[in-house]
Amino acid sequence: MKNTLGTSITLTLFGESHGQYIGGVLDGLPPGLPIDLEYINKQMLLRRPYGRISTSRQEADELQFISGVKNGLSEGTPLTVLIRNENIRPADYDNNLARPSHADYAGQLKYEGYQDGSGGGHFSGRLTAVIVALGAILRQALENKGIMIGSHIKRLYGIEDRNFEDYMKDIITLNGKRFAVLSAETDEQMTRAIEQAAGEKDSLGGILETVILGLPGGVGEPVFDSLESSLAHGLFAIGGVKGVSFGAGFALADMKGSEANDQLAIRDGRVVTLTNHNGGINGGISNGMPVIFSTVIKPTPSIGKKQKTIDYVKMTEEEIEISGRHDPAIIHRARVVVDCLSALVLADVLAQRYGSLWLRS
Amino acid sequence: MKNTLGTSITLTLFGESHGQYIGGVLDGLPPGLPIDLEYINKQMLLRRPYGRISTSRQEADELQFISGVKNGLSEGTPLTVLIRNENIRPADYDNNLARPSHADYAGQLKYEGYQDGSGGGHFSGRLTAVIVALGAILRQALENKGIMIGSHIKRLYGIEDRNFEDYMKDIITLNGKRFAVLSAETDEQMTRAIEQAAGEKDSLGGILETVILGLPGGVGEPVFDSLESSLAHGLFAIGGVKGVSFGAGFALADMKGSEANDQLAIRDGRVVTLTNHNGGINGGISNGMPVIFSTVIKPTPSIGKKQKTIDYVKMTEEEIEISGRHDPAIIHRARVVVDCLSALVLADVLAQRYGSLWLRS
Amino acid sequence: MKNTLGTSITLTLFGESHGQYIGGVLDGLPPGLPIDLEYINKQMLLRRPYGRISTSRQEADELQFISGVKNGLSEGTPLTVLIRNENIRPADYDNNLARPSHADYAGQLKYEGYQDGSGGGHFSGRLTAVIVALGAILRQALENKGIMIGSHIKRLYGIEDRNFEDYMKDIITLNGKRFAVLSAETDEQMTRAIEQAAGEKDSLGGILETVILGLPGGVGEPVFDSLESSLAHGLFAIGGVKGVSFGAGFALADMKGSEANDQLAIRDGRVVTLTNHNGGINGGISNGMPVIFSTVIKPTPSIGKKQKTIDYVKMTEEEIEISGRHDPAIIHRARVVVDCLSALVLADVLAQRYGSLWLRS
Amino acid sequence: MKNTLGTSITLTLFGESHGQYIGGVLDGLPPGLPIDLEYINKQMLLRRPYGRISTSRQEADELQFISGVKNGLSEGTPLTVLIRNENIRPADYDNNLARPSHADYAGQLKYEGYQDGSGGGHFSGRLTAVIVALGAILRQALENKGIMIGSHIKRLYGIEDRNFEDYMKDIITLNGKRFAVLSAETDEQMTRAIEQAAGEKDSLGGILETVILGLPGGVGEPVFDSLESSLAHGLFAIGGVKGVSFGAGFALADMKGSEANDQLAIRDGRVVTLTNHNGGINGGISNGMPVIFSTVIKPTPSIGKKQKTIDYVKMTEEEIEISGRHDPAIIHRARVVVDCLSALVLADVLAQRYGSLWLRS
Repeated sequence: MKNTLGTSITLTLFGESHGQYIGGVLDGLPPGLPIDLEYINKQMLLRRPYGRISTSRQEADELQFISGVKNGLSEGTPLTVLIRNENIRPADYDNNLARPSHADYAGQLKYEGYQDGSGGGHFSGRLTAVIVALGAILRQALENKGIMIGSHIKRLYGIEDRNFEDYMKDIITLNGKRFAVLSAETDEQMTRAIEQAAGEKDSLGGILETVILGLPGGVGEPVFDSLESSLAHGLFAIGGVKGVSFGAGFALADMKGSEANDQLAIRDGRVVTLTNHNGGINGGISNGMPVIFSTVIKPTPSIGKKQKTIDYVKMTEEEIEISGRHDPAIIHRARVVVDCLSALVLADVLAQRYGSLWLRS
Repeated sequence: MKNTLGTSITLTLFGESHGQYIGGVLDGLPPGLPIDLEYINKQMLLRRPYGRISTSRQEADELQFISGVKNGLSEGTPLTVLIRNENIRPADYDNNLARPSHADYAGQLKYEGYQDGSGGGHFSGRLTAVIVALGAILRQALENKGIMIGSHIKRLYGIEDRNFEDYMKDIITLNGKRFAVLSAETDEQMTRAIEQAAGEKDSLGGILETVILGLPGGVGEPVFDSLESSLAHGLFAIGGVKGVSFGAGFALADMKGSEANDQLAIRDGRVVTLTNHNGGINGGISNGMPVIFSTVIKPTPSIGKKQKTIDYVKMTEEEIEISGRHDPAIIHRARVVVDCLSALVLADVLAQRYGSLWLRS
Repeated sequence: MKNTLGTSITLTLFGESHGQYIGGVLDGLPPGLPIDLEYINKQMLLRRPYGRISTSRQEADELQFISGVKNGLSEGTPLTVLIRNENIRPADYDNNLARPSHADYAGQLKYEGYQDGSGGGHFSGRLTAVIVALGAILRQALENKGIMIGSHIKRLYGIEDRNFEDYMKDIITLNGKRFAVLSAETDEQMTRAIEQAAGEKDSLGGILETVILGLPGGVGEPVFDSLESSLAHGLFAIGGVKGVSFGAGFALADMKGSEANDQLAIRDGRVVTLTNHNGGINGGISNGMPVIFSTVIKPTPSIGKKQKTIDYVKMTEEEIEISGRHDPAIIHRARVVVDCLSALVLADVLAQRYGSLWLRS
Repeated sequence: MKNTLGTSITLTLFGESHGQYIGGVLDGLPPGLPIDLEYINKQMLLRRPYGRISTSRQEADELQFISGVKNGLSEGTPLTVLIRNENIRPADYDNNLARPSHADYAGQLKYEGYQDGSGGGHFSGRLTAVIVALGAILRQALENKGIMIGSHIKRLYGIEDRNFEDYMKDIITLNGKRFAVLSAETDEQMTRAIEQAAGEKDSLGGILETVILGLPGGVGEPVFDSLESSLAHGLFAIGGVKGVSFGAGFALADMKGSEANDQLAIRDGRVVTLTNHNGGINGGISNGMPVIFSTVIKPTPSIGKKQKTIDYVKMTEEEIEISGRHDPAIIHRARVVVDCLSALVLADVLAQRYGSLWLRS
């Protein structure tokens, strides 16, 4: 479905970075779900650039809900949001140089020159503002059902954050921070590393680790719509994401079965696993433990340093120094995109199992 | 779509490990595509257990094509294959103990006791035989269009295979081997590690690295149906897969943009990138370079060692020593599943772009 | 999705008329739903040819459930049924003459000669046996929820059956009859008309009128997945169906709004409409009244009379007299196909609204 | 997919009759397709109310393309159009009386009071303006490929238009007329009948007959995605459509096979059928003959006469005289909706078969 995600609850994205609007249509909501602007704007704030670790392009990101909402509640019909692109400078992109590791050249192959390439056009990270605005609705709905989502920057340029200790407490802490790390020391180190990269006209990436608490067991499908498939399908839509793993992830390659297996026990009348190397999912189905996954985000490809590239119209070799306004890192802004997109995927699989009205009940 | 994958070319899987048949329906094929039993059976052979590094359960895996084929060519109508389960021992599973890190308990939550749990039932790795049988048809079709797929065991219990050197040559080598590693020395070390784990009633996992050569640029979608999303969606359907990454994957977290970016050049009149940290995909679209991804497979959860678990009917804590016949590692068998499933995903996205008749042309 | 119908509950059909098996996969069932062979076989019986008004091709139509069923209950995993084609005579079709109004020539254009044309191949009415076998499961599930479906032959070669009088009573009557008409006199007239057509080596069609009782209001979608769209999408999959209308249907063209409008009232505390020209659906959504629709089925195209046609390989004009074994009418056999396919569509839209577990509750 | 239609080329609709905007997202277009405002506005004109036979609500229907278009050509990314609702009078609808045969009461059952009911809200015929605006793009693309679509009002309150004589000539004539009838005399009779109904505060419906010329043979699927299924699925999304039939449609019920069958011949080297009772489709697949279908549209439910109804909040019996501004007939305005929606469905099935780039070639 190209620019649409989901089965029961679907999100369709549209717009280009330097067009008039970006926006999206969220369909399949139950009627009567709160569309809480205060909550949504808090989520939007977590995505806003700030300080020296972000781009200087500032967008008001004012949300225009043009359908599907009445008196602060969903109507049940398609809910559409528009965000005006105010700070447009298409002239910044008035050439046909492929910015390395951007979608410019791949986009040229697909769209044959008809695309709007300015600032990445439809590929731009700008569109993640729509994911946050609409995913936030489902994030709040899940919270009202006791399902909490939180992410921290687990690793950035060799710097590691501490592990989760008390999931619920840590999630609440993280969701109140713009730079989502658990350890104050790591916070400082990571921030300094990004600022240093910025000073060098360079950029950094990192790994986000996400935990989902309270998801009922039994959700997901055994084969092609495994919960891992559904989450990964969504996450790989975020620009810059190049890997997704669940539980112990790639470290499982060096473990024995006797180490990796999550043995089971009963605690306070509930079934638990004594470890959680599977990230709360077995056979594609949630098992009632916290769902845990990691998402790696590559360093922002827009850097000021001189790079070799091509002019994809003239087909000549060229050099490029990207000016414009760019993020030395996007991981701290991508965090809430991952959270809100995960909320959307989870709401969809829950609606498939229990019906969409369950989300409101 | 639960047990169906794809949009233009779709695969629906059915069956349980210890039922009468497993099978699948492949729909959307162009008419006149070769259904080459010799080729398919070669692929099936790469999945068969052998030696001390695999289970002793032997299945003839004879393929019954019951619809959609005439005179060795696809008819264009749904093509159905059945594989009889001959070596059935459901009594091996006649209890309600959740095997740790298997789908038993999650399956119980989803199916509430109505599922056939023997040997994993519908969750069983047995179903990957169907993926190979039907995916092989597309793998051959892609080869006829110059699109080659190959995978090696990149890492297993700390042992690393050498990197790809000459992609085409290495792919051909790998596709002729049952244990797909590039270095003879690594082959021996990995085999020994698996045998040792088997001797300890334990198991191992590992990482597969896959390369796709010859894929046209411009394939995939910019947001939700990115090529990464489509491949990952398919790959996470394979039991035991807990992570998928593209290009440099999780190592991107420790790189600067200036290191990670793939600069562009023109070689022999073709656009190339000087590195391939993005794995041939930018903005969700293929860029004409080799597509490269890694898949981590957890250690086989079935081990003979004593483990803590629960009886999910009585809800009591228990111990389990899994007897039955099990694989000390499945990564060498999973390789061809990854290859054939990738072929299916690629054929589907190509058919969406060019029409399904393109696959035959 | 080509040969798959549905969103939450999906049916995939496969097989050819003169191949080894026909069959289907029903996915998305809740676990624990009765798979009641006695009930299913009663439905199958209603589709069986009998007497002089049907083909002399007799098939045992023994159902082999090869996955998804345990102890007479659905497991929740894909449920697959096979039906062996026993009475195969592909030689009857050993030429390339396009039978007029059959799919032979259109199939040739689509499948370019690779299709199995014998007896219509994948286009054959044989495949409706699978629709009945699997749709019957949902029909019974709906009955257990108080949702009843019944159809009668409303019109055949100018002969009209009486209208429904007491819906529930009439449905029970119809579901016990092989030749589904309400008036005994009409039964005799229609039977005689078919026998006469058979004697003339000719054939007849007709109109089925179907009523659905007990469907909850509020089911369906306002625009593209209107309840009319979903039902019509399914019904037009049945070979020979050339029209579907709801409520007063095409007669609405000659009515004024003041005649056509269904005025509302309250009876015994329930909202009712005083007429039902809209067939229980407004704006694509069920309104709680009986859902009523009509399906026109063209005369069976296989007739023994001499007809002009072409050889689609030699591209020459020819004449054809169809021998083989054929139905002088299929409307009496198509009735249960319409009923069971409607059950499947309704179960799917209900599962989308309330979750699939609702069907079992 | 609720408010989304299509597989390769998809249309998502949003908005309410008396909200700020209505609009839609058209995804899957090939890049470089003309977005010809002049052409589109001509189509929009055919939908505009005029004279005494239409509502007096006048909307400028100015199209704002906010994504997916550059320099009058599609970019290949999602194309979004907005239409501002200027002439809003929600106060006209400030009560909870269910207008008979409108979606008010069914919508209440589905949306439980959270819907915006003014003027039908999301159910409103207003949304068909979006179908025309976006479907027109595909209609023009098909014309450039030699595929022409035309419809006439075949029947209205007992008045019949003449049959098609020269398809191509008649289509051109119809597409230049606001009131699409072939015979000048019928034009006058039908117009007078509508005016008379208007004078009586009443309304009329009718039957549209549509012909598609130039569609390649071999398009459509044999079972669930038959060309009839796809077209009907789309057509039943249009408010007021209560029946769809192909070729001879419901008249087939009174024919013998020997009359109904379309015998084949070769004329000027092309295969033709001597009659076209199947409307150009056999077995769900186009056969190269003109595709012909009929769509019945019920009388506009909004009439000024006094009607019995209920207050769906108070649950009391009431009377209603609908004031506001209403159409005494919509069939002449619905015509271009049917044409443009058909274009969209055909473009989608063609893109599925040949790839979306084919539409531009």
